Amino acid sequence: SRELFVLTYGALVAQLCKDYEKDEDVNTCLDRMGYDIGVRLIDDFLARSAVKKCRSYSETADMIAQVAFKTYLGVTPSVSCSSATGNEFSLILDKNPLVDFVEELPAERASLCYCNLLCGVIRGALEMVHLAAEVTFLQDRLKGDAVTEIGITFLRKPEDRKHKRN
Amino acid sequence: SRELFVLTYGALVAQLCKDYEKDEDVNTCLDRMGYDIGVRLIDDFLARSAVKKCRSYSETADMIAQVAFKTYLGVTPSVSCSSATGNEFSLILDKNPLVDFVEELPAERASLCYCNLLCGVIRGALEMVHLAAEVTFLQDRLKGDAVTEIGITFLRKPEDRKHKRN
Repeated sequence: SRELFVLTYGALVAQLCKDYEKDEDVNTCLDRMGYDIGVRLIDDFLARSAVKKCRSYSETADMIAQVAFKTYLGVTPSVSCSSATGNEFSLILDKNPLVDFVEELPAERASLCYCNLLCGVIRGALEMVHLAAEVTFLQDRLKGDAVTEIGITFLRKPEDRKHKRN
Repeated sequence: SRELFVLTYGALVAQLCKDYEKDEDVNTCLDRMGYDIGVRLIDDFLARSAVKKCRSYSETADMIAQVAFKTYLGVTPSVSCSSATGNEFSLILDKNPLVDFVEELPAERASLCYCNLLCGVIRGALEMVHLAAEVTFLQDRLKGDAVTEIGITFLRKPEDRKHKRN
């Protein structure tokens, strides 16, 4: 049952809003906490799902949407590739269970990325399987957008860059 | 899947430990947050479980253990009545899923009731069905006890007291 989790997450965000005046600081803190969680959650994920190694960024994005989101949040975002270079993906959520109890953001918290923990979780988990990525909210229903969209940009590995430079 | 919840709860406790120097203040804060959660969670609980009204404190304690804990935490504590007056109960947990990722409390946090949120949740939910109760940890495996024990003392209703006084 997710309700206790969703309400506890709300308590965490509320506490951070007490602690930090600036939305940006709350967002950073949520991302950092999420990163630490992702770093630990990946073991559980790999053990639980007994998944095969992904062979492409596209497979990895599908795995995050169809297995990880389904397992931990009970929803399956749709995935779209948003760049010709094949390293940028969007996870699109019609329904975000983490905001079940949130009506709307208060006016003074307009820049808050309420669910920013999720970005950190994805980033942390990917890093543990040696994939560097930038993960950010591109759209958010809490901010009036039609859907909630999480953008994942896989970064070239340092060794790739080094190769190129050499 | 509970892992994301358990890790997020850990992040919440860690943040409160940053915010408050004294364990007592962290415990109070967790209890207060839990209370606010319980007040909201009770609707979900009643809707979900379609339970009948409990006719005794004993039935209520069993309901908390066998339905609420099972639903939201996936474990079923055993219940024992610990007073002749029939208003004190213990929920005894052999395994507490909320501490899955906690090895032990740091030495400087010896008075921390790590799971104190749960006490608040129970207290808040009970209050919404017009049952006043004190809920505290009596034993905690994190502190070296053999089991984790949550004590629930149902308080006489104010109208009962008034009756008696009149």
